[in-house]
Amino acid sequence: MAKKIVIIGAVAVGPKVACRLRRLDPDAQITLIDRDNRISYGGCGIPYYVGGDVNDLEDLYKTTAQVIRDEGFFRDIKGVEVLTRVEATAIDRRNRQVSFRSLDNGREGLLDYDKLVLATGASAVRPPFPGADLPGVLTLSNLHDAERIKTMMAQGRISRAVVVGAGAIGIEISEAMTDLWGIETTLIEMEDQVLPMLLGKCIARSVATELKKHGVELLLSERVMKIEKHDGADELEVHTSADVLHTDVVILAVGVRPNTDIAGRAGIALGRSGGILVDRRLRTSDPNIYAGGDCIELRNLVSGENTLMALGSLANREGRVIATNISGGSSHFVGTVGTFCVKVFELGVSKAGLTYRQAKETGYDPVYAVVAQSDHAHFYPNSEFIYVSLVADRRSRRILGIEAAGKHGDGVKARVDTVAVMLRSGLSVDDVCGLEVGYAPPFASAMDVINNAGNSLDNILAGANRPIDAADFLAEFNNGTRRVLDVRGAREAAPFIAKHGPRWFNIPQQELRTRYGEISPDEPFFIICDTGARSYEAQVFLSSRGISDTLQVQGGYAMIRMTDPDF
Amino acid sequence: MAKKIVIIGAVAVGPKVACRLRRLDPDAQITLIDRDNRISYGGCGIPYYVGGDVNDLEDLYKTTAQVIRDEGFFRDIKGVEVLTRVEATAIDRRNRQVSFRSLDNGREGLLDYDKLVLATGASAVRPPFPGADLPGVLTLSNLHDAERIKTMMAQGRISRAVVVGAGAIGIEISEAMTDLWGIETTLIEMEDQVLPMLLGKCIARSVATELKKHGVELLLSERVMKIEKHDGADELEVHTSADVLHTDVVILAVGVRPNTDIAGRAGIALGRSGGILVDRRLRTSDPNIYAGGDCIELRNLVSGENTLMALGSLANREGRVIATNISGGSSHFVGTVGTFCVKVFELGVSKAGLTYRQAKETGYDPVYAVVAQSDHAHFYPNSEFIYVSLVADRRSRRILGIEAAGKHGDGVKARVDTVAVMLRSGLSVDDVCGLEVGYAPPFASAMDVINNAGNSLDNILAGANRPIDAADFLAEFNNGTRRVLDVRGAREAAPFIAKHGPRWFNIPQQELRTRYGEISPDEPFFIICDTGARSYEAQVFLSSRGISDTLQVQGGYAMIRMTDPDF
Repeated sequence: MAKKIVIIGAVAVGPKVACRLRRLDPDAQITLIDRDNRISYGGCGIPYYVGGDVNDLEDLYKTTAQVIRDEGFFRDIKGVEVLTRVEATAIDRRNRQVSFRSLDNGREGLLDYDKLVLATGASAVRPPFPGADLPGVLTLSNLHDAERIKTMMAQGRISRAVVVGAGAIGIEISEAMTDLWGIETTLIEMEDQVLPMLLGKCIARSVATELKKHGVELLLSERVMKIEKHDGADELEVHTSADVLHTDVVILAVGVRPNTDIAGRAGIALGRSGGILVDRRLRTSDPNIYAGGDCIELRNLVSGENTLMALGSLANREGRVIATNISGGSSHFVGTVGTFCVKVFELGVSKAGLTYRQAKETGYDPVYAVVAQSDHAHFYPNSEFIYVSLVADRRSRRILGIEAAGKHGDGVKARVDTVAVMLRSGLSVDDVCGLEVGYAPPFASAMDVINNAGNSLDNILAGANRPIDAADFLAEFNNGTRRVLDVRGAREAAPFIAKHGPRWFNIPQQELRTRYGEISPDEPFFIICDTGARSYEAQVFLSSRGISDTLQVQGGYAMIRMTDPDF
Repeated sequence: MAKKIVIIGAVAVGPKVACRLRRLDPDAQITLIDRDNRISYGGCGIPYYVGGDVNDLEDLYKTTAQVIRDEGFFRDIKGVEVLTRVEATAIDRRNRQVSFRSLDNGREGLLDYDKLVLATGASAVRPPFPGADLPGVLTLSNLHDAERIKTMMAQGRISRAVVVGAGAIGIEISEAMTDLWGIETTLIEMEDQVLPMLLGKCIARSVATELKKHGVELLLSERVMKIEKHDGADELEVHTSADVLHTDVVILAVGVRPNTDIAGRAGIALGRSGGILVDRRLRTSDPNIYAGGDCIELRNLVSGENTLMALGSLANREGRVIATNISGGSSHFVGTVGTFCVKVFELGVSKAGLTYRQAKETGYDPVYAVVAQSDHAHFYPNSEFIYVSLVADRRSRRILGIEAAGKHGDGVKARVDTVAVMLRSGLSVDDVCGLEVGYAPPFASAMDVINNAGNSLDNILAGANRPIDAADFLAEFNNGTRRVLDVRGAREAAPFIAKHGPRWFNIPQQELRTRYGEISPDEPFFIICDTGARSYEAQVFLSSRGISDTLQVQGGYAMIRMTDPDF
């Protein structure tokens, strides 16, 4: 007899399960149900639709062959029944039935299942401050929201926007509004950096610099207290911990929460973060019920802890695993290392694993290197700087995380992905030193930035490289703790000497072997060059001459400029 | 007492050893010797200098800070002595001495060493056919050759060129001559494909198409028999196995041979391919002598065999290992998986591991998938097709190799590098299905092409996907073995029906579930769509209806167009 498969949720993981299952089992009776009438769409494309890179909303739910993925598509092409505008109201696990109700006409019904798949996704969090539900205070969790905002912008009704939350969505939507629409956009984040869950402070500072460079007003360490709308007024007043902002619209992008009501009510086990718990075959605590996508918790394979990770790519890979398992095969989804990328104006940003702070919280003894280098051979005409930060555990030398940013986003992704794919089985600093990545001058350096990130960390762990990162350098230099030895050429150093006076002194690298006697061996100072390579070499040389209270600025002036372009 | 280190060869691995060693050991006495006066240069940049992407020859031996790397640079900045235009003539292993002779004045001398490093590189092979040493028949193995050719072109003395050998250098130099200089270039390769040591036939065909598209005349399966120059004539006559070509210059790019004369004469063990044998610490059979770079054999970690691999990136990584070991540390260089990339006009091409043919020769039972997909989300405006071929062993499901090509070269490299870095420890087809690479619409698809390559191979191994690659399809279709079922839309199929008549029939995918009765279950046929996704799905559906003698064209029309744009 044909197996009955019911799938609740038809955005990413649901359709993937349905289509793969159909190919594995031509007889199965597969039913997808969803509250929405728009299904099987690329939700990650919403900011690009809002920003105009994607013109038509339909592009987000068309196949590569330009066919719209609607009920008819699933019925005629995939052989899958889809019920839209239908809400699953309860799961009767004993009788294996899902009850549902039509959102259009209230009609109720029951669906029998042999296997049930929960693909209920996640919803945007509305924070608890007063005014979060005022008209004009929006979230961006589905295509309807996207259409509403784009229409408002197209009608010229928005000239100022406040975005709350500098996570990936908040940043993407800030870019979308600023770039194409020229909207005065203020981005508010209560943490002291952008992308606090994703990046350490070094790469986060580059992202902040990029946002400001393109006109986004960024407010860090600031919290929204309430939003008000006065009678008769068009504008909204956003009261933060520091100020009052006037705006036409507020976009809430403070995160998502897994949709687990129906699972919870059916007694299916939920985890500490509120997601559905699954095993490696993506089965819930009920062996007839699978779950995948934004509603589940995944094992973070670096921290060992469970985590929520709302990403379409994970959802798709999970969907394939679920379908294989339902059809009688065996496929495992072991967990995640948190690989992530995001475009921020002209900057590609990517990360995997843990940040320095997360590593510390997880009980590791983390240490990190920051490297700036050209992404292609430095003599090749189109090369751009790429900035890489690599985190390892001091005791075990195990790599815990990597972050990178640069103008060639595909190249940034290339560096992070190579480390990411090895994080799950564990790799050491030495593995990164020798990582065999492709080389040709148009695509990499002979000693690629990724190898140099490993080399740098190796030297730090050996005690030969005593670093300070650009952000800490800026703070400490402004506090006046140490002078700076600039080992670049006299011409490069001159404007800094002019600006900082005797706090900045210059001995070009090529004169260091003859002029080091000018330096007092007892004075603590910073060493700086363009990218950190020469300052490291200078540090090593000076140490061999007894001058050892030095800190060399990782990533050099290239990294300082990304951290604070006004320095 | 200060250790004495002598390094023979000062291009890539030699300088890397010297500089790292200096940082590890401030007292060591380090001497680099080289036959040439130009040292420490990016040899891989030569084609870009010839082609004009790199303007000045000096750019190839300048640091990122624009300092020229010459004897003075090494002496003043690195604390390393360099003897240029000096040839090492013999090694006295017992007394640990290297004898040398100046190429300028014949002066001879001896250098004592505690540790010796052989970084003697490789030389371009001059094939044994008559005329290979005529004037106008050149190799491109150093900066002097590069300068000579560029000068000849700049003086307008070359309007036609013949390049012998379609390996990476042959292709890069063909591009250089065609693209900027508009030289009529003929590229001759005796194998039946370009890059025969590096690529399987599918991706190789895309490269051939790209070369032809940009005006390079490509002659495959053709062998140069002799080159003649008639008295008083300016031009050269290249006699091949099929034709006689008239040209102004011949560039030989048939490969390189490791320079091991001095090592061989000193009784140091050489391998089957003629390279110096080293252990994982990169020591030769003499514990006081290390070797690295193009003159050594490396373990291929997929085939298990020793191999020659002349790549600046390997040389640099090896240099670091050698320096660490000489200074008393322990660092290992385990081998190579053959990661490689090359730019071919607008195409980035990358590979790692073994080709299908190499895998077969090595005793594996290989099977491969070919996938065509957009590199970024298909709805994102700047996405381009990327073509991936993945080879695995049928028995063990172990991945043996990966190849890719596409317009966004950094993205091509990203896909290959992620698999490459895992090849050394071994990864399975299932690992590729779940490979956790970064996703955001500007950089990838939710189900990335790399995952889909794994999925496709998984389906092939499961017997659900019965594929034929585009090259085989073209050959078999032209032989008239099977008709074609085109499951694209009627509009896409129409021109093919017009061209091929009843041998091409169309049932659009959305009509297949109602119209499959039109197909005779006994007829063998090919199934084709745009990229292979729909043809696979159609194949699965038809099989479930008893129509199973089908082959679906991997990568679909996208791959056919790359294989033969005239089809």
